[in-house]
Amino acid sequence: MRKTGVTMSRNEQSAVTVIGLGQMGTRLAQAFLAAGYTVTVWNRSAAKADALVAQGATRAATIEAAVAAGPLVVVCLPDYATVHGVLGPVAASLRGRTLVNLTSGTPLEATEAADWSAGHDAEYLDGAAMSGTRLVGRPEALFVFSGSRPAFDTYTAELKSLGNSVHLGADPALAPVYDTALFGLAWGALAGFYHSLALVGAAGVDPTEFASVATAHMPFVTSLMTEHARQARDGVYPDDDGTVEVHAAAMAHLAHTSAAQNIGVAVPALFRSLLEQTAANGHGASGIASVIETITKGAHNV
Amino acid sequence: MRKTGVTMSRNEQSAVTVIGLGQMGTRLAQAFLAAGYTVTVWNRSAAKADALVAQGATRAATIEAAVAAGPLVVVCLPDYATVHGVLGPVAASLRGRTLVNLTSGTPLEATEAADWSAGHDAEYLDGAAMSGTRLVGRPEALFVFSGSRPAFDTYTAELKSLGNSVHLGADPALAPVYDTALFGLAWGALAGFYHSLALVGAAGVDPTEFASVATAHMPFVTSLMTEHARQARDGVYPDDDGTVEVHAAAMAHLAHTSAAQNIGVAVPALFRSLLEQTAANGHGASGIASVIETITKGAHNV
Repeated sequence: MRKTGVTMSRNEQSAVTVIGLGQMGTRLAQAFLAAGYTVTVWNRSAAKADALVAQGATRAATIEAAVAAGPLVVVCLPDYATVHGVLGPVAASLRGRTLVNLTSGTPLEATEAADWSAGHDAEYLDGAAMSGTRLVGRPEALFVFSGSRPAFDTYTAELKSLGNSVHLGADPALAPVYDTALFGLAWGALAGFYHSLALVGAAGVDPTEFASVATAHMPFVTSLMTEHARQARDGVYPDDDGTVEVHAAAMAHLAHTSAAQNIGVAVPALFRSLLEQTAANGHGASGIASVIETITKGAHNV
Repeated sequence: MRKTGVTMSRNEQSAVTVIGLGQMGTRLAQAFLAAGYTVTVWNRSAAKADALVAQGATRAATIEAAVAAGPLVVVCLPDYATVHGVLGPVAASLRGRTLVNLTSGTPLEATEAADWSAGHDAEYLDGAAMSGTRLVGRPEALFVFSGSRPAFDTYTAELKSLGNSVHLGADPALAPVYDTALFGLAWGALAGFYHSLALVGAAGVDPTEFASVATAHMPFVTSLMTEHARQARDGVYPDDDGTVEVHAAAMAHLAHTSAAQNIGVAVPALFRSLLEQTAANGHGASGIASVIETITKGAHNV
């Protein structure tokens, strides 16, 4: 299906190289194979390619051969130092190709890698896999990319075969910025969930029963994010979802209830502190999204 | 549509009384009207019923008349003391009816209200509206109920006209327990989101652009809840979503990045503390859901 109607030049581009065959790199290669691409793989420990070769990938004998195998080179290594160690010696081979780097790193490392690529006439996309390894290749697996928009446009089909691949902007630092921010977002939801599980567990509720109701509640919570982001952009915090003062009182109730059940109260205590600090900043009668200003101002630096 | 094929006895039950016409009570009455029910309303300040009367509701002249108007009496008042103050004098009129109490309160207050109702031969359902007032009447508005299962079964159509109405169990305390726990869950997600907005804001990202990616990430995060609840039930924490140690290191990175951007670090600092405490408890190589045990043990009581 994916290959229907492609031109000759498109066919020439249907080869993908994957360098670094850890858990994620292996899943990336499998997703490209499943989408029908010609996949060349390379790993420092060559044996890690065995399973992929059995699934249809071609093992490159050298890193030079791996890079030369196609116009799209996807790298997923433990860190950026390893990326430079592996690609440095074959930098000249990258000329005219696109380097997609899914290695985890900092905004500065992404910017430096983009500059390094530009210095070798290669297009560069920094990327981050946000949904773990299990979902790779399925449309719900979120991948964020930043850097060369022309490269993203040229290889959209390849990148979409990995999941819900989104281009964030031309600044290569955006992918690691989003990576870190989305990690914090996920942890907020999980920490709130873990606290709630401990609380209902103390009342004898089966965790999976609570989860079935909790997951039904999450689309509503998610809809609040869309609305509150708008409020943060405009700097105006209407109280349709309750005021900071009302939420602070409810959070005090959650903290007291938790303490009465002898479970940890650090999670509600933090939220209560954020709310009370926001009220102290003059936002007691504002909507709860005004808490964003408290965090932005750094009043809670510890 | 809702009335097609109902029997005479079902028709007799198609009257709903709503007592307490604050913001939520008004929305409840409107949802019942929209679903085609005969709605009788009462509020201590009678003028609060004016708009509803214009929309088709009947104003009861007295609280006695309100209770007598039908078999289903829905109450939404500021607190349980007000509920007892309003209904106490007409308790005898509740005999044979079902009292649905959407007033916010504690598990103990719900249990006491259920006992009080039983003492007056009334069925009792405690309830909580989880999705604010704006969505009331739409299928995505989550309402949780606990108490009499026969009452919930008899009035399922009426209660479902409010939204996604779920019966949690016969123990009337369950609704306030879930209410508090779901509040904590929502706040976890929001606090994580607010921190992330502050972080990407420092990098110049428009909040609404980040929100569009963040909301695309939430179904994955929600799917983790289902899986982690299973792990909590079984007390077994596989590391498919990363180990506690790996997440602790990533959280330290988030805290450092936040500090470097001069935004508050209280949110990642708390998550890091939970993770490090969990590692110290011997779960460093376990999956992250083992954090639930740390909270359950109360090690983070502050």
